[in-house]
Amino acid sequence: MNIGQYTLDEYTRLIQSFHGSIAPGLLIGGVMVDAALDRIDNRKFYDAICETSSCLPDAIQLLTPCTVGNGWLHIVDLGRFALALYEKDSGRGVRVFLSADKTAQWPEIRNWYLKLKPKKEQDREALTNQILKAGVSLCRFQDVEVLPAFLTKQGKGEIASCPVCGEAYPRNHGAVCRACGGRSPYIGPARIDIGKNAA
Amino acid sequence: MNIGQYTLDEYTRLIQSFHGSIAPGLLIGGVMVDAALDRIDNRKFYDAICETSSCLPDAIQLLTPCTVGNGWLHIVDLGRFALALYEKDSGRGVRVFLSADKTAQWPEIRNWYLKLKPKKEQDREALTNQILKAGVSLCRFQDVEVLPAFLTKQGKGEIASCPVCGEAYPRNHGAVCRACGGRSPYIGPARIDIGKNAA
Repeated sequence: MNIGQYTLDEYTRLIQSFHGSIAPGLLIGGVMVDAALDRIDNRKFYDAICETSSCLPDAIQLLTPCTVGNGWLHIVDLGRFALALYEKDSGRGVRVFLSADKTAQWPEIRNWYLKLKPKKEQDREALTNQILKAGVSLCRFQDVEVLPAFLTKQGKGEIASCPVCGEAYPRNHGAVCRACGGRSPYIGPARIDIGKNAA
Repeated sequence: MNIGQYTLDEYTRLIQSFHGSIAPGLLIGGVMVDAALDRIDNRKFYDAICETSSCLPDAIQLLTPCTVGNGWLHIVDLGRFALALYEKDSGRGVRVFLSADKTAQWPEIRNWYLKLKPKKEQDREALTNQILKAGVSLCRFQDVEVLPAFLTKQGKGEIASCPVCGEAYPRNHGAVCRACGGRSPYIGPARIDIGKNAA
């Protein structure tokens, strides 16, 4: 069994190292990405949409050229365990989702996917075995075409210096940067550290 | 010169393979993550905040245990080239940002960071050399404490079946899934593919 360009052993080592654990979502996610790659013309440039922020983005990042940082992976958090690969020029592609009704004959997969049992009562080994046995039979596929917003890369535009914090930010964000405009993730004003290498 | 656990050569091969190119943002990003790691107690569990969705998230994913898919990397798109690593329990940590005033003596870095020249007029080789020479001297550091929202992992809660599309989604998203509620990234209703393995 291969997952993308890897053997199953290579892929499990890779997800252990990158994701931190051999999570069920990375195993079935790998199968889903592999199946999607099988259904597109990969001589063309493509982008990815991931419909959940849990697990699946990491399978996409490991198995395709699309990452969060290069802008080719778009996470649209719809809470559905699904992804789409689509051509950058036409916007047409294939969507894969994990189908709840197809889990009917795989009780541990069903327990995990629909959260019918608390995580600590799930049998991880049986779950892994069932995912590897069921594989692509758990998936459904759809032809999709993405909205135009997903075809154009949004540039940052002109860079300005925020009059409050003094840091560089895209001027089209407004008169001050978003952090100084109330969206800072930090408590209070940050303290400048005058320690090691900071001067 | 090492970047995280890698030699510079290993790191450039890694970013070429994962990110698709040896982008300036991944080079200086690697230096920033390395410097942040140097300033935290990495025997403790930590999460990351990345204040931009461009390039920097990939440096964090490659050099720390924090990825988008495992939920330990939080992208808060403030448009600032900055990141923070913080302890999961206390929320205290260190923030690193690329300081515009520290680029004054490095013209190619300044051209790139503040977008003073169009990308095609920038000298990529000189830019790379300046980043490698300037290194951590381009950075400033701050002690930060994150908002409580970044300390608790939001569970998905109960899983329901969407009455419109029939797919599994978190019930706390509402009566229908977000895609059927108007946030689908696709044009029109998706067509079910009855091809290969789809039945």
